[in-house]
Amino acid sequence: MPIRLDDSSAAFERDFRDLLSAKREVSEEVDRVVADIIADVRERGDAAVIDYTQRFDALALTPQTLRVQADEIDAAVAACPPEQLAALETARARIEAYHLRQKPQDAWFMDAAGVESGWRWSAIEAVGLYVPGGTASYPSSVLMNAVPAKVAGVDRVVMVAPTPRGETNPLVLAAARLAGVDEIYRIGGAQAVAALAYGTASIAPVAKIVGPGNAYVAAAKRRVFGQVGIDMIAGPSEVLVIADGTANPDWIAADLLAQAEHDVSAQSILMTNDAALAAEVEKAVQAQLQTLPRAEIAAKSWADYGAILLVSDLEAAIPLVDRLAPEHLEIMTADPDRLASMIRNAGAIFIGGHTPEAIGDYVGGPNHVLPTARSARFSSGLGVLDFMKRTSLLKCSPDALRALAPAATRLAQAEGLQAHGRSVTIRLN
Amino acid sequence: MPIRLDDSSAAFERDFRDLLSAKREVSEEVDRVVADIIADVRERGDAAVIDYTQRFDALALTPQTLRVQADEIDAAVAACPPEQLAALETARARIEAYHLRQKPQDAWFMDAAGVESGWRWSAIEAVGLYVPGGTASYPSSVLMNAVPAKVAGVDRVVMVAPTPRGETNPLVLAAARLAGVDEIYRIGGAQAVAALAYGTASIAPVAKIVGPGNAYVAAAKRRVFGQVGIDMIAGPSEVLVIADGTANPDWIAADLLAQAEHDVSAQSILMTNDAALAAEVEKAVQAQLQTLPRAEIAAKSWADYGAILLVSDLEAAIPLVDRLAPEHLEIMTADPDRLASMIRNAGAIFIGGHTPEAIGDYVGGPNHVLPTARSARFSSGLGVLDFMKRTSLLKCSPDALRALAPAATRLAQAEGLQAHGRSVTIRLN
Repeated sequence: MPIRLDDSSAAFERDFRDLLSAKREVSEEVDRVVADIIADVRERGDAAVIDYTQRFDALALTPQTLRVQADEIDAAVAACPPEQLAALETARARIEAYHLRQKPQDAWFMDAAGVESGWRWSAIEAVGLYVPGGTASYPSSVLMNAVPAKVAGVDRVVMVAPTPRGETNPLVLAAARLAGVDEIYRIGGAQAVAALAYGTASIAPVAKIVGPGNAYVAAAKRRVFGQVGIDMIAGPSEVLVIADGTANPDWIAADLLAQAEHDVSAQSILMTNDAALAAEVEKAVQAQLQTLPRAEIAAKSWADYGAILLVSDLEAAIPLVDRLAPEHLEIMTADPDRLASMIRNAGAIFIGGHTPEAIGDYVGGPNHVLPTARSARFSSGLGVLDFMKRTSLLKCSPDALRALAPAATRLAQAEGLQAHGRSVTIRLN
Repeated sequence: MPIRLDDSSAAFERDFRDLLSAKREVSEEVDRVVADIIADVRERGDAAVIDYTQRFDALALTPQTLRVQADEIDAAVAACPPEQLAALETARARIEAYHLRQKPQDAWFMDAAGVESGWRWSAIEAVGLYVPGGTASYPSSVLMNAVPAKVAGVDRVVMVAPTPRGETNPLVLAAARLAGVDEIYRIGGAQAVAALAYGTASIAPVAKIVGPGNAYVAAAKRRVFGQVGIDMIAGPSEVLVIADGTANPDWIAADLLAQAEHDVSAQSILMTNDAALAAEVEKAVQAQLQTLPRAEIAAKSWADYGAILLVSDLEAAIPLVDRLAPEHLEIMTADPDRLASMIRNAGAIFIGGHTPEAIGDYVGGPNHVLPTARSARFSSGLGVLDFMKRTSLLKCSPDALRALAPAATRLAQAEGLQAHGRSVTIRLN
């Protein structure tokens, strides 16, 4: 049974804090194993990657077969149903159109002192994209990671994807082809992260690694951070639905279950000011579970981590939403735009009853890689800026330097950095 | 003696790779210690912070004296020379003016299918700013971290700064006052990072921690990443000067030494196509060292990590610059703008002979917190965006949902996520 909180209860604040701090992932002791794998890949390169792939994926590779060849991708594309390829292309085009608007502007301006300054954005040269194997191998995630990288102008997008016992997902390869991925390697785990970060004889290193993975992949990304850039450390997915009495309980139930079917660690929360609606949603969840192929996963997620928050006033409860900082927020109320405008911390907001999160997962256009585990308090969904970096620019004329010199040299002196001061004054004479 | 590389030498590529991979920091085994400190602060809160401050900073605190009070800041400001305060204000105003231009735009648009989407930027609610103690306690860094946070709209900027044996730097407190820092605590090390990340009875938690620190601080930031956001892990500072025969060797020497005086681990590199200039710069470095208060530090940095790269052609050598990805790049050539436009990987570019890095360190306007250790390949200097996050927005009308439904449900089916598909189709009937 999902937990129930009611903001009129005396225990509410304590229960809400427990909800905020509940850990939904097993914290495995993986860090030592991962450190050893990374050191081994740095030391032995391809040979180490091949050994770990044999051990963890039961797959025998050689330096020549690490990479997925063009003819294999051709065959995978040919094996995909045409209507699935068409749907992928619809998704790709819409994701591209949305992300093209995120391309940042360069700047260059002169101020009253005659100092010219600004900045210039440029794409990261090479980016690695981790794609999980098995059931979490999603073609839509390939698009969501690779399309913004290509929009940013990344020259080399390198995908790694484990293929346990050699089993590949043709639609994942098709998505990579569609998105313009430049290289694909059939490796995974910490060994793939290490190969991307440090390079091997067969795999040139990248400058940044993005994409979700299991605990080993997450630990490896944390370890190579600094050597390369990384995106967020992804946790289990979550949705918060805010609804009032105008909302359709069946639709809400469907959305809660769409989140819950991902993973037993996923979390679905309903916040409402209408106790009758909450009861109807609970009934609808049970009814819809009966006919759901992934009912076992969804039922366990809902029972273990599902939550229903009864609040006396939705607008007044917005600080609770900001504390939860949900990855996905759906708003199904009489005036969803108004409520949406009041939210500060959320990865993505789905406004109104006709905007189920699943539309955004696939074809809406915005990215579906979003901050989990309350990290929307300080971070954003994946976007074009994650694949670019900004170089600041400064240019002084002799007069501009003269104008700034007194303040600069005084501060240098105050900080005890006389060579800093001299590098300014030496130019004034 | 600095190392010398010549791109006409057969050993150049090997030597250049060695230069790229040289470690400039002692990798201390601090991670275990830091993990214990963080666990203790989570467990015991203020009491643990107070114990570690006694042990590491030889300073006895109580929960009441953790925070620096307004009258102490008043007294510090009164103790600063007025011309230093004026210089700080000049710097603050110029940093603010530059960063105001970085404020991002929200977006909202409708596409041909009738789908409305966009995004909204908002400030992070609370940010922690780590300011090192002792010799690396720079008022300019307080401005460079706090001003962009305030420009972004951060409500609560919380500074922590250790004060070993109770010694404070009045100009650091004055800079905090000028920049609008909201709270200051006289604590440092991993215990301060833990207090900011998890909160104590006296210190409310923040959502992101920025600012440089020693190996313990860096390890602590890496550990709390996920609980809170962090900025980059800063390494020793570095400059690359590109110069041709038109450049003034004394100015170059002054700039190389300004970098070298920071720290024995700092790195100053000259790249030139003019062997005679290189020889003159070396002579000038030795001459200027004679009269430099921090000569010992600067000489050691220059001897251990200094480098002179002779190249046959500056433009042709730009790929070497991009591989080095310097934190600071100075260009003193006949046409510095042209060269600047060709560079892809650099934290900041200082264009032309009258733009010494020191101007940018203090009063130029751009941020002086920049990516070190080749991380300009994938990251940017600190800016307003580091203190904001983006929420993506999506809104479908019934018709828009109908238009997108076929592609979304096909992809959901292909991924085996039937509840995703149902959350779309249930709304169509």
